[in-house]
Amino acid sequence: MSGTGIGLKSGHDIREELAENAAKVDAFMLGELRGDRPAALYEASRHLIEAGGKRLRPYMTVKACEAVGGDPVDAVPYAAALELLHNFTLVHDDVMDHDDLRRGRPTVHVMFGVPMAILAGDLLFAKVYDIMARHAPRGVSPADVVRSFDSTTQATLTLCQGQALDMEFSDANEVSEDDYVFMVGAKTGALFRACAQVGAIVGGGSVEHVEALGRFAWDAGIAFQIVDDVLGLTADEDALGKPVGSDIREGKKTLVVIYALKHSEKQHREALLRALGVEDADDDTIVKAVEALRASGSIQHAKDTAKRYMDSAYVMLERLPDSDAKRDLRALVDYFVKREY
Amino acid sequence: MSGTGIGLKSGHDIREELAENAAKVDAFMLGELRGDRPAALYEASRHLIEAGGKRLRPYMTVKACEAVGGDPVDAVPYAAALELLHNFTLVHDDVMDHDDLRRGRPTVHVMFGVPMAILAGDLLFAKVYDIMARHAPRGVSPADVVRSFDSTTQATLTLCQGQALDMEFSDANEVSEDDYVFMVGAKTGALFRACAQVGAIVGGGSVEHVEALGRFAWDAGIAFQIVDDVLGLTADEDALGKPVGSDIREGKKTLVVIYALKHSEKQHREALLRALGVEDADDDTIVKAVEALRASGSIQHAKDTAKRYMDSAYVMLERLPDSDAKRDLRALVDYFVKREY
Repeated sequence: MSGTGIGLKSGHDIREELAENAAKVDAFMLGELRGDRPAALYEASRHLIEAGGKRLRPYMTVKACEAVGGDPVDAVPYAAALELLHNFTLVHDDVMDHDDLRRGRPTVHVMFGVPMAILAGDLLFAKVYDIMARHAPRGVSPADVVRSFDSTTQATLTLCQGQALDMEFSDANEVSEDDYVFMVGAKTGALFRACAQVGAIVGGGSVEHVEALGRFAWDAGIAFQIVDDVLGLTADEDALGKPVGSDIREGKKTLVVIYALKHSEKQHREALLRALGVEDADDDTIVKAVEALRASGSIQHAKDTAKRYMDSAYVMLERLPDSDAKRDLRALVDYFVKREY
Repeated sequence: MSGTGIGLKSGHDIREELAENAAKVDAFMLGELRGDRPAALYEASRHLIEAGGKRLRPYMTVKACEAVGGDPVDAVPYAAALELLHNFTLVHDDVMDHDDLRRGRPTVHVMFGVPMAILAGDLLFAKVYDIMARHAPRGVSPADVVRSFDSTTQATLTLCQGQALDMEFSDANEVSEDDYVFMVGAKTGALFRACAQVGAIVGGGSVEHVEALGRFAWDAGIAFQIVDDVLGLTADEDALGKPVGSDIREGKKTLVVIYALKHSEKQHREALLRALGVEDADDDTIVKAVEALRASGSIQHAKDTAKRYMDSAYVMLERLPDSDAKRDLRALVDYFVKREY
């Protein structure tokens, strides 16, 4: 239970830990989505869940619970509920962004049509509160259930704002780095924060520890999203589960793009603009745009920025007493910010 | 406070009462949707609310609170939250059903695009829980807040099932009257029930009274929806706020249609089938289909069925002690089941 283990855990260990937790969370989620009238609605609501995923958010919930002295088993239903919330937003985002692939599978609206995808998302969202009302961990007071509900709700409101800003920025000529960080905080940081806060609340954490874990997760979420944006340019399609460069074709103003538009030389800027927001840009044009981003230093800039948020997250984590769970949370951020595929 | 006033209240009174309550609920809802980043998201979320409406559901909440001895003023925020829930489902339903007009105005997706309409719906849904967490009436315990959340959530899950069934039935060859009542219970009864239950919970009602008011509202909701389906055929466009017969063009299997398909003579059946599910059916074809529905007795059958559910609702209401609020609830059902425009 001492802090000496920090940093010693290998990437392999955290992946195993994640997989173990994901199996529990997945079993719980699928058990909750076993409705049958009408069958298509429940199939649509399970579709994305069945594609699997790393389940970083529920891991955050379970470990936050443990880090404040709670029993991590108690946190699984709430962790699963928050992963359903994440999946609800993905299902709706894919409709809004016209994305056809996610986690290597056709998206819900491609499989079941837009109306059923909207409805499946709504059902997943309602299930979040349904699970939280029915599966309050032993010993958690109704007041703390309400706090968990509220943390979840605030995250969702912020997520809606973040997604609206993301759509707005795609059409905007100029977006600042501050705008981007605000948007990413809203789209990713807010839900990570809720995951950590809810875990800490059901674990019986003090107000200070709930706050510190929330701020830790917010910064970690921003770091994570920046890295995800970079990987969307540099990883291969099999690892991504979607085409490389789709963010560029959609005109997404990621940090990489914002920095490059402002700081790169004319030739790199032009190579980028030939692909940015051009939905039918061919693969060669995308490859050249990514090369230009790399040459302009904007990919490195994004990685450096992610590292800054990661360090800031670690500072918050230090407000908690040393424990295995604290070490795991640190290893989680370390792993997902440094991952490359 | 005696029961002698029942039935004496004129339609005029209930309309005034509804309008008075609607003004309070509308002010509260709009105050809650005054965000500004990004402006388009909040404009989209206010769009349908600003079109007004009778606000039957929040009236149900306020009166249920009063009927169990609570202060109706305390129930306004929860009543407003439940009206936001209703509006969330309307915004999403209009996207799913490709409806262009509601309450006489272009629908949210027509004004702001499908992505923003999906997002505005999600925001409205999250606001329901946001309001309930922040505006728990004085003296309501956290445990009763959780009960209110749960009642709301169960209604939403059921609503999703109802909407999915509604979509499924539109494409189905045969739908029974039982299927229809199940679907309408899910789409309309469930939310009415939650409105009454939540009002009774925050009013401090006994378990028996919460249950009785919930069952009252469920049956009233079914009666209301059947009447709404009839009015969609017999009222004029100005009163409806949408084109007459749009349900027929969309192929909706309303009770009127189900009965006519099964019981009407060949010529009436044929007139109906020339319009049913034919999206570009002209007005004359629609008029002839409605005439056939009337001639086949199916409109009268629907009205009789609505009356049966209304009577069943009254029976539940009798489980409550006499009061002004109980009389108002009875007058409400009386008014909206018997309305004709």
